Order: sequence, then C-alpha cells, then structure tokens
Amino acid sequence: MKKYMSSNVIGIIGLGLLGGSIAKALSLHTSYRVVGYARRQSVCDKAIASGAVAVAYTSVVDVVKEADVLVFALPPDINGVVFNEVAPLIKEGALVTDVSSTKHNFVQAVYKYLPSHVRFVSIHPMAGSEKGGFEEAKATLFEGCTWIVIHSEDTPGWSDDGAAELRHWGELFGAHIEEITMAEHDAYMASISHMPHLVAGMVATVAGGDADGEQRLRLAAGGFRDITRVAGGNPSMWREIIMGNAECIDAALASLEVEISHVRHLLAETDSEGMEAYLKRAKKIRDTFASLLGGYNERI
Amino acid sequence: MKKYMSSNVIGIIGLGLLGGSIAKALSLHTSYRVVGYARRQSVCDKAIASGAVAVAYTSVVDVVKEADVLVFALPPDINGVVFNEVAPLIKEGALVTDVSSTKHNFVQAVYKYLPSHVRFVSIHPMAGSEKGGFEEAKATLFEGCTWIVIHSEDTPGWSDDGAAELRHWGELFGAHIEEITMAEHDAYMASISHMPHLVAGMVATVAGGDADGEQRLRLAAGGFRDITRVAGGNPSMWREIIMGNAECIDAALASLEVEISHVRHLLAETDSEGMEAYLKRAKKIRDTFASLLGGYNERI
Repeated sequence: MKKYMSSNVIGIIGLGLLGGSIAKALSLHTSYRVVGYARRQSVCDKAIASGAVAVAYTSVVDVVKEADVLVFALPPDINGVVFNEVAPLIKEGALVTDVSSTKHNFVQAVYKYLPSHVRFVSIHPMAGSEKGGFEEAKATLFEGCTWIVIHSEDTPGWSDDGAAELRHWGELFGAHIEEITMAEHDAYMASISHMPHLVAGMVATVAGGDADGEQRLRLAAGGFRDITRVAGGNPSMWREIIMGNAECIDAALASLEVEISHVRHLLAETDSEGMEAYLKRAKKIRDTFASLLGGYNERI
Repeated sequence: MKKYMSSNVIGIIGLGLLGGSIAKALSLHTSYRVVGYARRQSVCDKAIASGAVAVAYTSVVDVVKEADVLVFALPPDINGVVFNEVAPLIKEGALVTDVSSTKHNFVQAVYKYLPSHVRFVSIHPMAGSEKGGFEEAKATLFEGCTWIVIHSEDTPGWSDDGAAELRHWGELFGAHIEEITMAEHDAYMASISHMPHLVAGMVATVAGGDADGEQRLRLAAGGFRDITRVAGGNPSMWREIIMGNAECIDAALASLEVEISHVRHLLAETDSEGMEAYLKRAKKIRDTFASLLGGYNERI
C-alpha cells in the first residue's frame, strides 16, 4: 500500500538492522526511491535483491549526491567520521537525520560541518535487537516501538518541515511518536538503555565469569535469560554507544550503586519489611512501564 | 498418555504456579492420585474443576494424612512453618520434597523435625514467571526447563529411591535434569536468580523512580522490558526468597559492585579498548549460556 507519491530520493547510509529496516519500511509504505550504502558488496546485493532499495552502493558519495533525505545509520562514531567527509556534497535543501542511540559525537560533527542550506533533525527509533545486520532487518521492526524525534529548535539546521517528515515516517511504520530535546535524549538513554546494557553484561560476568561459571549457567533459567539478553549484542557498536555517552552513563551507574548499598543494608539488618517495601516499589514502577507499553509489546 | 500405573497418592501443598503445574503435569503423565492443599476454597475448586487434582482441601492435615509423596510448594518461609506443624502426621515411608528457590530456612525445619521413617529429597524446577498463581499453572511449564535434584547423601532423610523418583518426574515433564549439592544450590541461585532479580528492581528504580521517571519509561524499549521483567514478580514471595538467602546474595551484590567499579574506571579513563574487551567477554559468557540452553528456549 504505497501511501505517498513522491519523486524524492532517500539515501540510507548503513544497511544494518536499523538502516535496513527503514529502507524496507520506506519501500513498502512509500513511493520514494530508496538508495543505500553498505561497506560490503554482498550486503548491497542482498538489499537490492530483497527490494529494500532500488540501488545500493559501496561508496557513500554515490548515495549523498543523489539523496534528498540522508539517513545516517552507521555506528555512532563512524556516522560522525563519514558525515565530515561528505558534508560538502550534500544536496541543497536536503534533510539529514541519524538513528543513533548516542547522539553527542555525531551532532558535534553535524553542528561543525553542516552546510547552511542543509536541514538536520535527529531521530531515534527505539527498536533493536542483540542480533544485528541486514539479515535481521524487516519492514515491521518499528511496529509498536517508540520513535523519538529530537526537537531542538535552537540547533543548526533545525527544520519544522524536516521534523514533520520524520515523524510521519514513524507513523507510517506503526510506531508511537515521542519528542524530546537533545539534552534529554542522552541522559534518558543512559538510564533506560545504556546503563541497563552494561548491567546485563555485569550480571552475566558475575554469574558465569569464574571457574564455576559454566555449571551455574547450566542451571540458569528464563529470568537470567531475559536480564542478560542484550549482553549478546555487538561489542564494537555498544562500545561506541557507551563511550559516546560516558558522562550520563557514569551518573546512572552511580545511582545504581546507591540502590545496591540500600539493598545490602536491608540484607545486613535483616529488614524484611524494608525489603518487601523496596520490591513493591520496584514492581510498581515496572508495572507502570508495562501499562505504558499497552498493546505495543505482546510480551510484557 | 499415562506412563505410570500406581496407587500412590501425591500431595501438593500449595497450588500456585509451581505446585499447580506439578499437579497438572502429574495428572497428565501418571496414574498417581494427586491431592492438593490451597488456603482458599476458590483455588481448590478451580484445581478440581481443571482436573489438576482428584481432590483439594483447605486443610494441610487432610493432604498429609493421605499422601505417599508430599510436595511443599508454598513460599519458602511458610513451607517451613507448615512443615513444623504437620511433620508428626506424615505417613511412614513417605517422601517429602519442596520446590523452593531458597532452601536454607525450609531444610533447617526439615532437619529438625523430620520423623525418622520419612524420606526427604529437595528439588528446584527452574521454571517461573513474574505472573504467579494457579491461573498461570500449566502441565507444560517444565518442558525444556532445568529440573534440579539436590543430591545430599549426608543430610537427614536422604533417599536414593526418592531422588530417582523425583528425577523421573522431571524427565516425564520434559525437563533437563541437573544434580547439585544443597550448599551449591543457594550460592548458585544467588548469582543466577536472586541477585539478578534485585538488579531488575534496581534498574527499574533508577530509570523510573524520580520525577522524570514516567517520561523515561515512555521511551524505554525491548531491552529495558526484558532486563526489568522479573521485577514484576510477587514482592512478598521474593522477600522470603531473598531474606532466606541473604548471605549468598550479599556476596553476589558485592561482586556486582566490583564490576561497576571496573566499568566506571573504564569510562573515567576513556578506555575504549578496555570497554570493548569488557563487552566482548560478557557477550562470550552470555553466548555460552545461550548455547547451553540449546533448543530449550525458543527465545534466546
């Protein structure tokens, strides 16, 4: 069902899980011409064969020259490096966006190198998986997910029209739209995504990192599986995300240390009532989250 | 498919998620007469109507008098209190077991009050959910799960025959059998279940516990959903589990603090290589766990 007729060209730079899924969703829901960049020819071939893109190049420049909207969907640091290189080639009036989980490094590059005639609005589709790559990409990835549009009128390249266009993509893809500022974004992500990601790895390490680790892991069940799931994600990509948001994540880890101290105190004092109150409050917060999700996720 | 013909009576004390599921699985796979205890008549009625039990009582004594095998499936502390009360009434030669996640308090009661003619072998089916109660019970709950039989020849009531019988239940129910000692059990559970449960609650609290909490939770996605899932569990039951294994859990939390310190150091030093190495190691451990699960869980 092609809802939009347009001669616009959308260039997707990076055909991994997010870039590939946006390409597929745009090709499904719009009449835009979608072109892609991937480092490897094999990924380009797959993207073309699947119908996700009309054409794909192993050169970023080929995409940039053609595109009216450019979606940077590489890992956060590489996004910034690539942007520096191609910024002067971006078409006049084009719209630039990115889908990174950590915005700081990329937007610093954008603020520095963005040509004056180019628009920039950042987004963050809150969809992901510990399994990455074009093989995992699908047009339905964003259904029921939160699609964040960064609303920052004071930053270089801001465009109401650009924001409206990107919000529209999220709606077309069945996502739930939220708008926050750039400053809020990185701090919030530290608490709801980056710190939890590190914690998943830490819990896996504590449970399975010593001589008895494998025996313990043989006994572990569904709770452990879910708590540690994201620790299976790509270490290189997550290193970029985490190091790019170090300050906010450090603050979130400091908050976690306060919670641990409190719980250890309850244990030391054999404070059963305090422990039940702590667990009740955590459950209430978790239940709030589940109810906010509503019908979006089948598996709460 | 009734594989076993027997006139034995199995008494299930507590028809929650685990007790109810064992009752249903026994009624499905064996010809044992299964009888149950629940505090509320409405649960007894449901259990009888569903065919999980032949009969159910709101008096523990009625179950104990009749049963050749007694399964204590109440929360850990209540299990111990009830055992104290009914120990003298247990039939000669009967087998007592329990399914608790924390063994310490219950087995202290058993070691103290177990009649000399009664056998005792503890088990722990590693199946659970943040949703409890008989409504959630199902005969298939144990399929693909780990079914731990505590092997402790030196403890009161130990019985090879009893252990074989309970191992057999796990096999009948499609579970994967593991044997560990009582001492190993509580320490292992602290690392793979109890500490992670607390961490799920702590992460929910850090992300959602302050004035901006609801806004943050509105943005959270699948990773947060999974990491915090178990925090939705019953606070009263988990308080008993946690306070009953306080020492081991405190040690696991201390280990977690060491990991946090290490990660905060990597952040402070902008040690990208160290961070990637940390994430790689955590992923390797998590991938080991996933491969150990093999086909057991459809959703790794």
